[in-house]
Amino acid sequence: MKKLITHIVFAVIMLNAIPVLAAGKLTEKEMAHAAKLRDAAKKSDLAYEILESLTTEVGPRMAGTPGDARAVAWAMDKFKTLKFDKVYKEPVTFTAWHRGTETAEILAPFPQPIMVTALGNSVGTGEEGIRGEIAHFNTFEDLQKAERGEVEGKIVFISYKMEKSRDGRTYGKAVISRSRGASEAGKKGAKAIIIRSIGTDHDRLPHTGNMNYLEGVPQIPAAAMSNPDADLMMNMLKRGSVEVGLTLTSRSGETYTSYNVIGEITGSKYPEEVVVIGGHLDSWDLGTGAVDDGAGVALTMAAAKLIADAGVRPKRTIRVILWGNEEQGLHGAKAYAAAHKDEMKQHITGAESDFGAGPIWSFDWTSSDENEPVVDQLATLLKPLGIKKGNPKSTSGPDLWPLRGLGMSTFSLRQDGTDYFDLHHTANDTLDKVNPKHLQQNLAAWAAFTFAVSSVEGNFGFGLTY
Amino acid sequence: MKKLITHIVFAVIMLNAIPVLAAGKLTEKEMAHAAKLRDAAKKSDLAYEILESLTTEVGPRMAGTPGDARAVAWAMDKFKTLKFDKVYKEPVTFTAWHRGTETAEILAPFPQPIMVTALGNSVGTGEEGIRGEIAHFNTFEDLQKAERGEVEGKIVFISYKMEKSRDGRTYGKAVISRSRGASEAGKKGAKAIIIRSIGTDHDRLPHTGNMNYLEGVPQIPAAAMSNPDADLMMNMLKRGSVEVGLTLTSRSGETYTSYNVIGEITGSKYPEEVVVIGGHLDSWDLGTGAVDDGAGVALTMAAAKLIADAGVRPKRTIRVILWGNEEQGLHGAKAYAAAHKDEMKQHITGAESDFGAGPIWSFDWTSSDENEPVVDQLATLLKPLGIKKGNPKSTSGPDLWPLRGLGMSTFSLRQDGTDYFDLHHTANDTLDKVNPKHLQQNLAAWAAFTFAVSSVEGNFGFGLTY
Repeated sequence: MKKLITHIVFAVIMLNAIPVLAAGKLTEKEMAHAAKLRDAAKKSDLAYEILESLTTEVGPRMAGTPGDARAVAWAMDKFKTLKFDKVYKEPVTFTAWHRGTETAEILAPFPQPIMVTALGNSVGTGEEGIRGEIAHFNTFEDLQKAERGEVEGKIVFISYKMEKSRDGRTYGKAVISRSRGASEAGKKGAKAIIIRSIGTDHDRLPHTGNMNYLEGVPQIPAAAMSNPDADLMMNMLKRGSVEVGLTLTSRSGETYTSYNVIGEITGSKYPEEVVVIGGHLDSWDLGTGAVDDGAGVALTMAAAKLIADAGVRPKRTIRVILWGNEEQGLHGAKAYAAAHKDEMKQHITGAESDFGAGPIWSFDWTSSDENEPVVDQLATLLKPLGIKKGNPKSTSGPDLWPLRGLGMSTFSLRQDGTDYFDLHHTANDTLDKVNPKHLQQNLAAWAAFTFAVSSVEGNFGFGLTY
Repeated sequence: MKKLITHIVFAVIMLNAIPVLAAGKLTEKEMAHAAKLRDAAKKSDLAYEILESLTTEVGPRMAGTPGDARAVAWAMDKFKTLKFDKVYKEPVTFTAWHRGTETAEILAPFPQPIMVTALGNSVGTGEEGIRGEIAHFNTFEDLQKAERGEVEGKIVFISYKMEKSRDGRTYGKAVISRSRGASEAGKKGAKAIIIRSIGTDHDRLPHTGNMNYLEGVPQIPAAAMSNPDADLMMNMLKRGSVEVGLTLTSRSGETYTSYNVIGEITGSKYPEEVVVIGGHLDSWDLGTGAVDDGAGVALTMAAAKLIADAGVRPKRTIRVILWGNEEQGLHGAKAYAAAHKDEMKQHITGAESDFGAGPIWSFDWTSSDENEPVVDQLATLLKPLGIKKGNPKSTSGPDLWPLRGLGMSTFSLRQDGTDYFDLHHTANDTLDKVNPKHLQQNLAAWAAFTFAVSSVEGNFGFGLTY
């Protein structure tokens, strides 16, 4: 999951605002079928099987690596094996980034290795590495306030510690040191930056994640250390100045073309109208991408498959999009939006699963009051799964932001993310962390939700904002 | 902690069996003082402070490395700073082992990196590494039963998964694949062995630990993969044969002399009689050795210090021994036993803290029935801490096994080890894993226990067995 500043998106929505057309209501028969799908999905192992296949047969699949190409081939093959009506891929082009090796150590006062990982898009240090004194800041804001003299020639360390939250609200405040720390430190003459990992665990496994350099600012190497290493660093700093060595051989490389891989279940009445569901196919390279975002891939593929096999075709086409290169800047999402911007009216609604594999506890939507009846029907369908009706402020999922920007309605099936940031972007993101029961609860919700929104007459409005 | 086969030890005990002399009883005044010590220790931060100092200022301290030398210097300095009456060190000589680099990957059918660590004492593969097909066994016993043809030219993988237990009883069954797997596999012509880590966690951090080669058997490289990697391997093996690459540049090197570092609080009435407490000073190199065995070092140093400062000197000398190179074969323990074998009658009793930093829930002893009164007094002292009277079958702690072999009585303050093997011998063995409240409960027990056994008249018997 990524949190980008979305005011640009909202501005676009405002400009494109188009009157809402009321959705219809599901028939009794459709409601009964959605409930049947839900109850069958609750016992289905299909999502777990797909996830086991992806993590075993592909594993790490960072954009631009051989794992990316293997993931695309896997996804094409899996959609075909599952007998989707249409299977195709659309190009996603970007500059590949290569991790290289990454090591760091405290050199003084007490030599100890520390566990670090390069942040995505970081420049390297050269093979000889760099060394420097730590300039410590509690927060990104403290770094912003610092004088050049406090930072120049040093290695910046931001120690801000992310707190746990069910809905991930604590991520935004924490992640700014990852996304903007290097530019802020570079501007003030720092040699490099090493942040405390943006994560809520206590494991000796650093969290990677994307960063970007602001234009016109010196580009300095950027890394994250694990939480226990950050604790150690704090204990060292209590004793006085600390000198650190850092070697990253990361680099940006060639232009690379990956793909959004798409599988469709064709609608029975309005086949040209689509409901977009999916997750992102790429992962970071440290783990096998089970929770970020293998789970989203598996859940949405499985939900569409269960719907296709259950004997009642929904009226609209279900388009499962496995997004390419989400992690390094929503490249797949932007490519899709650019390629399909003239077909937005046919995009009835959409939702993405990209917040791990915890149970769903709430759902949000974008809709006007006139759509309230079908939202209430969804609430009725999802209630037996312990899912409550949320609010009309769906934040979709990052890969749908460009489509929301073009006016598409979205839903959010909100997962419990309390433990998500223990694993997020680390080597620990592996299949054993996924609770099969939770995956079944998710699948039940996705199957019922997807059938309902692709079956109901009318639409969910277009160009809505909140 | 190490579990060695102890029947040789017991045989020695039988040969040297000497009649038991009854211990006396603690006076009311002594009981009151022990209780006061206990209650003060319950609020003391001293053990945590010492542990923070060791993990921050030394950190990893594998025997034979620069960290070992730094740990010895730290310990000498810490005893002196704490104003122990006598501070000295005794040599411990062994062959140093060097880890080098360690990488592994699944080459086919689905290329993925796997996280491995060399087992202590393993030979290397050469820098070019080796590759081979996996020969999978569920248990060490299955490997024992295998024909040469199933193993020859392959890389053995033992997938046995250690279960959790409060008292560590599950370790013995699991650890045999680490200690003896390489010899068994080498005997049958294997190229190498990679076991599932001997650990109860789900972290992408492999567990190291010592292994040894039987004489006359080809010495093959030996490593452990993390538990999630072992799960991945199992999923791959379901699909057919698996080829793996392994590179370890580990090697055994030069003869190295480290030290047992000893601090004493001199007894008031029988200064030549000693009560031995302590933990081992060395750690594995992957973590900072907070729970194995920084906690034992900190607790026993702190307990003796609190006793020394509390105004009532115990009758006997408290000898805190911080054992050198426990991990690679009890080298410090054996050196001490050899050097002090003629002074065993002056070693009244002993105990070691080497099972992490979980709360103490029970205590055991070696004693005859005649010592029951003082054991009951200990039970009275420890009960308010939630510690129950156990049984007269103290297993001491590994560094006391040679002294038990020479007839010394021992006690065991038994810690809850349910989570100990999540961290044991991994990079995750760091200070943040230690609960300061649990450390205080331990310290309270150690202070009361140590004061009591070094104050009571009589002794705890000698040459006891069970």
